[in-house]
Amino acid sequence: MNVAIIGLGLIGGSIGMALRKAGFGAVAGYDRRREVVERALERGAIDRGAFSVGQAARGAHLVVLATPPLALRDAMIELAPELDATTVVTDTASTKQHALQWARELLPAHANFVGGHPMAGSEQHGIDNARADLFHGAVYCITPSASATAEACERVETMARTLGASPLRFDAAAHDAAVAAVSHLPFVLAALLVETALGEPDGQEPTRLSSLRERQRLAASGFRDTTRTASGDPLMHRDICLANADALGPLLNSVARRLDQLAAHLDDPEFLLQFFSDARRVREEWEGEKR
Amino acid sequence: MNVAIIGLGLIGGSIGMALRKAGFGAVAGYDRRREVVERALERGAIDRGAFSVGQAARGAHLVVLATPPLALRDAMIELAPELDATTVVTDTASTKQHALQWARELLPAHANFVGGHPMAGSEQHGIDNARADLFHGAVYCITPSASATAEACERVETMARTLGASPLRFDAAAHDAAVAAVSHLPFVLAALLVETALGEPDGQEPTRLSSLRERQRLAASGFRDTTRTASGDPLMHRDICLANADALGPLLNSVARRLDQLAAHLDDPEFLLQFFSDARRVREEWEGEKR
Repeated sequence: MNVAIIGLGLIGGSIGMALRKAGFGAVAGYDRRREVVERALERGAIDRGAFSVGQAARGAHLVVLATPPLALRDAMIELAPELDATTVVTDTASTKQHALQWARELLPAHANFVGGHPMAGSEQHGIDNARADLFHGAVYCITPSASATAEACERVETMARTLGASPLRFDAAAHDAAVAAVSHLPFVLAALLVETALGEPDGQEPTRLSSLRERQRLAASGFRDTTRTASGDPLMHRDICLANADALGPLLNSVARRLDQLAAHLDDPEFLLQFFSDARRVREEWEGEKR
Repeated sequence: MNVAIIGLGLIGGSIGMALRKAGFGAVAGYDRRREVVERALERGAIDRGAFSVGQAARGAHLVVLATPPLALRDAMIELAPELDATTVVTDTASTKQHALQWARELLPAHANFVGGHPMAGSEQHGIDNARADLFHGAVYCITPSASATAEACERVETMARTLGASPLRFDAAAHDAAVAAVSHLPFVLAALLVETALGEPDGQEPTRLSSLRERQRLAASGFRDTTRTASGDPLMHRDICLANADALGPLLNSVARRLDQLAAHLDDPEFLLQFFSDARRVREEWEGEKR
């Protein structure tokens, strides 16, 4: 099978490396930055570098759009004229309602679009950090468009399994609501925690009794773990927030109300014990199921 | 030097194991639960088990109070009659203003109390998880009482260095404000994130479009790291919140205001990019300094 990968960052590069390693087919690749295409060739992520989206996609049975979330729209515009009814198109964006809407608006009516979202990533990014085992053991969300054929869905699911991931079908709205809670809210809270604990002194009234230097010295392994995702790519985080604002906004407000409620109960032993006991139980049940 | 450790959980047990391993002196130990004393003897955390605080402290040059935070008061009451002017007393509680206040109220005027707080811990707890290297490389906060002699402070600092930690003197109020931001706020946010993302459906309006099962499947490594501290001991988290409510409350309210502000700016690319860029920069500067 001929595969084209548009966007050769961490995700696109890792998909290429994994597919080539598995002998899945010939992999063509395109990235807006020419040096990234060169590097993808050097790293063995693609067989052939292309100078445009169209050139990469020509003759491909499967096109993987692995651009940054907000560049997906332009990639679809460039891809549209090249598509025939036999080509399957998938993406890797973190939110799926926008991807499906753009595919409906921008791709030809006969296009077989199947949304995809591999639940793997890293604070690292770029082709230099790509690796063939990035998706091992990960869930790979599949959100088919209304017009996608069963065979198109299977082709994307086969690709996901070739990456070592487990494909799982989702309604796009359910997907976006779920990732807002388990993926996007965590990185917003991580960034907010860094800002609050280690940010510049102005506007940091609640920490005024201690110096920034003291807080830096005392931040330890718990702080490091809780804030790890705050070291992720700011552009990616921004794009995800913009794309998933409808699901994320109410969550942020909901957490804010709960924080105010907690602040008002810091003298209430029973309330606090219930809160921390429930959180531990829920997390351990989840970890138990994951194993 | 004779050392007495009161409370043989993760912290007390690990201190005993490290001091014995280093040949620091004879270590007597007491815990309210007799089976914990037996286990501490088996694990080599103490040389001698005692049946009371007084019996453990008799003849000790240094008494380490390593009880749960809210049990510290009772331990001081039991210890008070045993103290003479040559005994140095330290504790390991996560907040220091209460510890110093109780020492002032409950210990004799001649007592040499030097507050201590090793910045090491774990989601694990109990004597079975104690280990001699728990404090290696950690900061060990020292908050001397007004009446403590220079020699008493040095004795506690020598103990901290023997554990492999770096003693660092703090004003008690500055310590409590700093740990509220870098240690207590993180575990509150971690628990809140677990509750919001994976809690029971009732009252979870913002996530109603997705099922709990879907969120459980999609929660991945970022979620695991961000919420790790939510698996810590609920009783310890409760006690810390109760003890440090004055510093923690304003922080929770401050984060709530910032969350509402972020929710109102989810359509503002510049605001979001600034927020995530600043957080990443601040975190990476901190990581760079830690190295």
